Amino acid sequence: MTTQTIKTLTLTETVEFLSRSDDFLILTHVNPDGDTCGSAAALCAALRSIGKKAFILRNETITERYYPFVAQYLAEESFEASTVISVDIADVSLFTEASKKYMSRVDLCIDHHLSNKLYAANTLLDGKAAACGEIILRLVREMKAVLTQEIALPLYVAIATDTGCFRFSNTTADTFRAAADLLDCGIDFVDINTRFFDTKSRTRLLIEQKLSENMRYYNNGSIAIAFITSQMIEETGAKEDDVENISSLIRSIEGVDIGVLFRERGDHIWKISVRTNATANASQICAAFGGGGHARAAGCTLTGAIEEACAQVLQSIETEQKIHA
Amino acid sequence: MTTQTIKTLTLTETVEFLSRSDDFLILTHVNPDGDTCGSAAALCAALRSIGKKAFILRNETITERYYPFVAQYLAEESFEASTVISVDIADVSLFTEASKKYMSRVDLCIDHHLSNKLYAANTLLDGKAAACGEIILRLVREMKAVLTQEIALPLYVAIATDTGCFRFSNTTADTFRAAADLLDCGIDFVDINTRFFDTKSRTRLLIEQKLSENMRYYNNGSIAIAFITSQMIEETGAKEDDVENISSLIRSIEGVDIGVLFRERGDHIWKISVRTNATANASQICAAFGGGGHARAAGCTLTGAIEEACAQVLQSIETEQKIHA
Repeated sequence: MTTQTIKTLTLTETVEFLSRSDDFLILTHVNPDGDTCGSAAALCAALRSIGKKAFILRNETITERYYPFVAQYLAEESFEASTVISVDIADVSLFTEASKKYMSRVDLCIDHHLSNKLYAANTLLDGKAAACGEIILRLVREMKAVLTQEIALPLYVAIATDTGCFRFSNTTADTFRAAADLLDCGIDFVDINTRFFDTKSRTRLLIEQKLSENMRYYNNGSIAIAFITSQMIEETGAKEDDVENISSLIRSIEGVDIGVLFRERGDHIWKISVRTNATANASQICAAFGGGGHARAAGCTLTGAIEEACAQVLQSIETEQKIHA
Repeated sequence: MTTQTIKTLTLTETVEFLSRSDDFLILTHVNPDGDTCGSAAALCAALRSIGKKAFILRNETITERYYPFVAQYLAEESFEASTVISVDIADVSLFTEASKKYMSRVDLCIDHHLSNKLYAANTLLDGKAAACGEIILRLVREMKAVLTQEIALPLYVAIATDTGCFRFSNTTADTFRAAADLLDCGIDFVDINTRFFDTKSRTRLLIEQKLSENMRYYNNGSIAIAFITSQMIEETGAKEDDVENISSLIRSIEGVDIGVLFRERGDHIWKISVRTNATANASQICAAFGGGGHARAAGCTLTGAIEEACAQVLQSIETEQKIHA
């Protein structure tokens, strides 16, 4: 029997680690967002630019919105990499079907989730980074790769999407400095901003309308719960892109401290997204159900009838608020 | 007769200019926004921090949203300053009633509008700055004032509001670097972002819901027209704040090039707001009805039954599109 020591690496150690291998396969998380896709694309481009062979594993759950950023880097079925890297994946539960076979052999995980389960042999982790893309940018610099537009554009997507275009509380001075360096490359960030932050599909508008119709308020309006049922998805013809990050809308309602989205994912299976302001810890609320994430944004899965699941979440919120009070 | 030479100053010359006076009155523009208020407050605080006497002239058109940022710096009626400075004011037509008496005696104008009419004796101008606040930050550094939170917070308000929280195309690498320096001061930017960019009243949500319910699409969805009727305002209890800038929502719908809002302002009186992307000139569309504005945002007033008014606007759009085609 061999025991594997889990190592947390510094930037320098990570570059040293990367230098020892010649071919890399990069994994993104299930239901990939801008950060995991942008980080993977930028890392892949950077590794190639210093002469390595690097590909991104196909992700069967990717949406049209993010596909263009990884398309040119996708691995052939036959590609066998000596080194497997996961980006922005806090836990093996976030692996896709296709990436499950790599679960126990991830050589390096690069992540910004404090809740990272340290499942990889080596981990480069910074819980203060607003996006995994911020860490990738530091890595690009440390490995002395030239910051080209091919690297800078996906990193902008990663950072901008994970910060709500620099609006969320995870934004730091370092985030702004990273963005400044990316803009210096002359990337078309205006196009990204228009597409990601200033365009709403008609279906999204319809979903938001239905969401606000069935919104439930509790505790003097400080808690709001909304639902996206399979029926709503069917009726509106909504795709994943149409409902992305819709939970932040709930929290943004005046007076709401805790916004919860129940997303039906199968018969009596609910994917819960919790968004909070400073008065409550979203990660703690979700931890009660085996979930996790960040202090202001977290998620978990619940099984059961809707009213029962709803009561359970409200109970967990109450417990968390008692701790905070 | 004396002739006054209009001078454009460098940062160093501006600091030199400021050093020659001991008391300052700062002017903000009519219907003040975050940039003029934030710039004025930061400049006032910076001047005071280096031992000068400085006040901001009361602005009778200020709203509750921005008043808190200038409140502590407001000049007494009796205050007579030797030096008058205008911030973020491109033209004397933007002077308030109270500031009109200073029109011909502005000693220094600090601005970022390329259209600045150079009405002041001295002007510090940078048309590439996303906000006047960016120029004030450079000035604060150049005058060797310590960048305290009293200076940094209003500058953040100035820059964040003028860039739609770093979303608009005027954002540059310098804007991001300025924001980074402001965050380094430990300002509570999250509170500002929440208040200005991440809070939606329940009434606003309801209005948006009704708006999307009655939205009309024309020309393969490239034109969208929405209505806010007096009945909707009554039913929802909406205030002006609740419907502010709602026309930009219409234009942001996927595929919509021209978004039009009909706002009922009395019996058969419609205030029309037109928002367009690059494919059509909003000002031209409104000019047909005696209105005007900018290429991407304009307005006019129409009288008549709703269907008739709607047909007239569609007609004007068609004419404008034929010119553009």
